[in-house]
Amino acid sequence: MPSLYAPGSLNSVAELEIADVRQILALTDRLEAMPAHERASLLSHRRIALLFYESSTRTRTSFELAAKSLGATTTLVSDKSSSIEKGESLKDTGLTLRALGAECIVLRHPASGAPFLLARATGLPVLNAGDGMAQHPSQALLDLRTMVQRLGLERRTVDKHLLQGITVAITGDIRHSRVARSNAMLLPRLGAKVLLCGPPELLPEEATTLGEGIELVRDFEAALERAQVVMMLRIQSERLSGLKLDRAGYIERFQLTEERLKRLAPNAVVMHPGPMIRGLEIEGEVADGPQSAIEDQVRNGLAMRAALLVRALLPERAAHVRRVSNEQTAQDEQNA
Amino acid sequence: MPSLYAPGSLNSVAELEIADVRQILALTDRLEAMPAHERASLLSHRRIALLFYESSTRTRTSFELAAKSLGATTTLVSDKSSSIEKGESLKDTGLTLRALGAECIVLRHPASGAPFLLARATGLPVLNAGDGMAQHPSQALLDLRTMVQRLGLERRTVDKHLLQGITVAITGDIRHSRVARSNAMLLPRLGAKVLLCGPPELLPEEATTLGEGIELVRDFEAALERAQVVMMLRIQSERLSGLKLDRAGYIERFQLTEERLKRLAPNAVVMHPGPMIRGLEIEGEVADGPQSAIEDQVRNGLAMRAALLVRALLPERAAHVRRVSNEQTAQDEQNA
Amino acid sequence: MPSLYAPGSLNSVAELEIADVRQILALTDRLEAMPAHERASLLSHRRIALLFYESSTRTRTSFELAAKSLGATTTLVSDKSSSIEKGESLKDTGLTLRALGAECIVLRHPASGAPFLLARATGLPVLNAGDGMAQHPSQALLDLRTMVQRLGLERRTVDKHLLQGITVAITGDIRHSRVARSNAMLLPRLGAKVLLCGPPELLPEEATTLGEGIELVRDFEAALERAQVVMMLRIQSERLSGLKLDRAGYIERFQLTEERLKRLAPNAVVMHPGPMIRGLEIEGEVADGPQSAIEDQVRNGLAMRAALLVRALLPERAAHVRRVSNEQTAQDEQNA
Repeated sequence: MPSLYAPGSLNSVAELEIADVRQILALTDRLEAMPAHERASLLSHRRIALLFYESSTRTRTSFELAAKSLGATTTLVSDKSSSIEKGESLKDTGLTLRALGAECIVLRHPASGAPFLLARATGLPVLNAGDGMAQHPSQALLDLRTMVQRLGLERRTVDKHLLQGITVAITGDIRHSRVARSNAMLLPRLGAKVLLCGPPELLPEEATTLGEGIELVRDFEAALERAQVVMMLRIQSERLSGLKLDRAGYIERFQLTEERLKRLAPNAVVMHPGPMIRGLEIEGEVADGPQSAIEDQVRNGLAMRAALLVRALLPERAAHVRRVSNEQTAQDEQNA
Repeated sequence: MPSLYAPGSLNSVAELEIADVRQILALTDRLEAMPAHERASLLSHRRIALLFYESSTRTRTSFELAAKSLGATTTLVSDKSSSIEKGESLKDTGLTLRALGAECIVLRHPASGAPFLLARATGLPVLNAGDGMAQHPSQALLDLRTMVQRLGLERRTVDKHLLQGITVAITGDIRHSRVARSNAMLLPRLGAKVLLCGPPELLPEEATTLGEGIELVRDFEAALERAQVVMMLRIQSERLSGLKLDRAGYIERFQLTEERLKRLAPNAVVMHPGPMIRGLEIEGEVADGPQSAIEDQVRNGLAMRAALLVRALLPERAAHVRRVSNEQTAQDEQNA
Repeated sequence: MPSLYAPGSLNSVAELEIADVRQILALTDRLEAMPAHERASLLSHRRIALLFYESSTRTRTSFELAAKSLGATTTLVSDKSSSIEKGESLKDTGLTLRALGAECIVLRHPASGAPFLLARATGLPVLNAGDGMAQHPSQALLDLRTMVQRLGLERRTVDKHLLQGITVAITGDIRHSRVARSNAMLLPRLGAKVLLCGPPELLPEEATTLGEGIELVRDFEAALERAQVVMMLRIQSERLSGLKLDRAGYIERFQLTEERLKRLAPNAVVMHPGPMIRGLEIEGEVADGPQSAIEDQVRNGLAMRAALLVRALLPERAAHVRRVSNEQTAQDEQNA
């Protein structure tokens, strides 16, 4: 369902049609291929506000650098230096940013649903940069692009069969992870099988209801054996305290070690949304090894977020890419 | 009295002649009408430092975006991330910024008079973005522009009769408000009648000495009945503790409700400098209603601050606008 | 020894050959003489990350403004607003910044050696903006340029005799000062005599091992009498607590007063890396007096850091300047 309240918004992967995903992927390719000086004129004199109620390095920085690479003017409002701490409501902060000429707001907020409320209050396109434990849609899209590239699926049509035959094992603190949620909702719609893996306290049974092709696998090694993609999630040590499983137990059962990877999934792509804790959920050797796509994810984050900004601020241009992309798709299908 | 120590500074509304106000309003109009790319060349390669010893969203962001829209390079120094916390004096921070090539400093500081000291120490134009409980002159100017627009006074000459016949009721925590102080000093000089309204603890008797046409009205409803402009101020809940008046009592006597507004001032313009606390000093319906000029204030803040930056950094250009504006004034007077 | 791991890095003054110093000084002159619009094209579309794990005003701001004056895009990541606080390692933050397109990282970090580790992990040129109590090489270079200018040594060849006949007295908390360390390592290699001065708790005997021409002088007045350059260091009051010497005692023995300066070193150049505490290590009259080069230091910081960024990102251009500079040098030597 498209977000009618504010076209160009991205609140949740749930509102993306497959055609939207196809368009965004095509637009990302297009922007990446563009010479720097040409890209730098696309959003010149346009204003983008970065509104961050939670700390962030990679998400904030990649939206900011993406915006600047498109020639836009950015302003950062964070909870550390603003009226946020004086009790102003999200709505009023948004109305203020709009009155200051912001044409798009990138929002990270601890409350689920905040981006939706902000888009409704301002009528501006709002890009969700993470809301509570709910959604992180740009992360799911950049993860998708990374998988397509690393698995060599670029020639496939972007439809419900794009990830056919691909099994993705997401392992760790699923319960608190908006990254897991967005991926688990998006990937099955494109044909992937998703395995969720972790101890019961961090992975409740009802997680399988997030999408169609989702399966719970408590045995990490069994999940590894089946996976073409292994996505590890950060474990916050403080969340382990009070669980039956302590830190050492977690590492023993769920850490992605070089040994496990070589033995069980020697060709799988390793992903992590970061920030990662080497030596807890993942061994440093794996993070730095040839199977790791972790830096690709960051690189794709930059490219993908540029596309989301263009989609929000230059909808006609984005639509044009879609048309081209559809023709390409039609042609691909004929050739296939 | 012009600020001879550093031309282009704006420390207090007290130092603005009416001719200065006329010039700044004309310059604001001029800049707003200018195409974006033309405006973006006015201050290219000029450096503006934003020095904020207190948190701020709208003031900091509007100065920053105004500077960037003029093509200037900005740098933000805030108390959260700087030598400020190492005990460096304001003077030395200012000398450092000057040596780094800053040609203008926008300062927010908890101590009254800090902008004056900084201008004297550096010789640079300093724009006061709020000093203690003393002054917030750019706020008073943007409020003035908002009133002129919303009351349809654009055709009037900018002189001591500009606001003739206009009554402005300022209500709330006058004692601690630099916004109230700047408005109460500026508006009467332009012909306005200013009513100050609030409980004794937040509005001492001596507030009437701020300007000529100032009157204390303890009864909010009586003030509303007489007002063409209703300016509400933020109430910090912690300031109510210890007063005879508790939060509920304050709301009962001083909240701007839709009912009160419709009954007593159905045509008045509603203003609030923000950040506002909906449900305390103002009902949300009023803030979002047709009489509200709150977003206009923010928009005018951006435009007005661009004019103050041009006045500080391109004095000849500003003077030229004044001349044109004076001719216009002379012509207006003939036509009248 | 050049830093082979990542050319263009600057980790410590120890890795600078005298030829490097000559090149950097020449490049600084060249950039300073360049028209603003020409300089603004040198690094356009290049990305520079400012990674600050400690607070800073002048170092961060001067690197930032230097980068912007060269047309580069900057992004600031500080410990106040980032994944740093989520426990991500320096290495992973660096890899993330590289994947986001950063081509150079300016790093301030509380741990000695951090810039070296970051350069090795990322392969990017890393500029040390202060690491623990170890090094602050760009400060030593800007101090050098300030001395050359204020002592009228511009015509001298940049070699091991550049500062011949010059005695520099560094006074204060040498033990905790990376500025002192970098200066004490660099200046003697260029022919200067360095006197270190301070109470035993803040200046241990082994400090003389930093370089060849270093001498400990406990008597501040004796040091002043011999100095052409007097470099004062900030004293953190909390460091005096627990020492035999209290604040009043420190002031009595080591404060640079106007009286002392006039009596003992009436022609010496006074320097301070900032932030300074007027009334503790230095009298305000001295900081503002004609012998003070403190603002020159800040100005040179901006110029010098621009050169370090060009050296890191445009090595061929920097090399070209070196060649010109060497020819000049050869010519100078013939003329001498």
